Amino acid sequence: MSFHAAIITLFPDLFPGPLGASVIGRGMESGAWGLETHFLRDYAKDKHRTVDDTPSGGGAGMVLRADILAAALDHVAPPADPRPKILMSPRGTPLTQARVRELAAGPGAVIVCGRFEGVDQRVIDARGLEEISIGDYVLAGGEVAAMVLLEAVVRLLPGVLGAAESHADESFENGLLEYPHYTRPQVFEGRDIPQILTSGDHGRIETWRREQSEALTRARRPDLWARARQKP
Amino acid sequence: MSFHAAIITLFPDLFPGPLGASVIGRGMESGAWGLETHFLRDYAKDKHRTVDDTPSGGGAGMVLRADILAAALDHVAPPADPRPKILMSPRGTPLTQARVRELAAGPGAVIVCGRFEGVDQRVIDARGLEEISIGDYVLAGGEVAAMVLLEAVVRLLPGVLGAAESHADESFENGLLEYPHYTRPQVFEGRDIPQILTSGDHGRIETWRREQSEALTRARRPDLWARARQKP
Repeated sequence: MSFHAAIITLFPDLFPGPLGASVIGRGMESGAWGLETHFLRDYAKDKHRTVDDTPSGGGAGMVLRADILAAALDHVAPPADPRPKILMSPRGTPLTQARVRELAAGPGAVIVCGRFEGVDQRVIDARGLEEISIGDYVLAGGEVAAMVLLEAVVRLLPGVLGAAESHADESFENGLLEYPHYTRPQVFEGRDIPQILTSGDHGRIETWRREQSEALTRARRPDLWARARQKP
Repeated sequence: MSFHAAIITLFPDLFPGPLGASVIGRGMESGAWGLETHFLRDYAKDKHRTVDDTPSGGGAGMVLRADILAAALDHVAPPADPRPKILMSPRGTPLTQARVRELAAGPGAVIVCGRFEGVDQRVIDARGLEEISIGDYVLAGGEVAAMVLLEAVVRLLPGVLGAAESHADESFENGLLEYPHYTRPQVFEGRDIPQILTSGDHGRIETWRREQSEALTRARRPDLWARARQKP
């Protein structure tokens, strides 16, 4: 059983989109993961295929109806479906690499892409939707956010990236930002590659990289640095 | 002069992709913003169009060469170009709605989509690239991250969303997560819309929504709550 994602959206044509390209797309072709897309309007009940209505209590925008989204969710993921049901939303818990790893170890995800002003709170509560935010900014809809989540997860699945070691040093895997990279040419606009990297002394290179990682994290992300230092 | 974005990428076919749909795509058609995509391999110097090389000091993956990316940047954005030059990178400063608003008030952005293990640090330094991270997780490349940044910016541009008021109450605009939404039907699976929302008392509705926003922010995002309370 490989990782299988289901998307519920008002813009099914956007998928797979970027998820069909590069290593993520090749992973789909090779069967490392699967994707199905469901059009929310297929679950509407009137001939205009209405999925939204005005907010109770007034205000701008429209709200996605609880009953329509519930019908879609119940069709896509019946009660026995073990996959987490996720709503992409700026009100959600911030996505972290730790949650990405958990999802990658599971059977997949059912992802609702919000649109309009929001989603009726009662379907979030009744279906136990996990609200996930990809960052502290607001998008026009949840589709690109769902792509972010899936790209982060899929690249961790077995057989998607080449060498397993490609994950070991990257940002967040050890609670730190990644050290700076250099490659040929040896001199670029008068700037040399740091001498230590061409010394061949792997112990000193590793120490230098660790120091660079720590200094960068301390400078740019005091929040991450505080958490990294709390770990044993 | 409307907002104009330039993308430097190894996957130009992914654009506009999701940015061509819905309100963001209609904003492009109406001239509220513009997008051009540049293929990084067009700036390679050998017949294989190589853009990367092995990391100095050893390690997994490949590093994007400083000289190739510099050539692309200098062509796309000569020194007089006033647009910020941005590198999407998990090592960057986290994107916030405040930075999104600043970018939306400016002339546009030149956005480099990273791939491979990283980008040679010397071109980041030499061209003053602003490293921006969309969140604390790792993607396969910067393309979807660039879409996130542009979608967040473009929806704030004049004429892209309908009513200007649509931004006023949303998450982060006042440092808080947004209050819960409800719409018809009045009863969903035995769950009523909160009575206050159908009372017609707009003062009490506003107070209730503010309290809900504060309670949600306190519960889910103590970090945001602490910052919101520091503001005057």
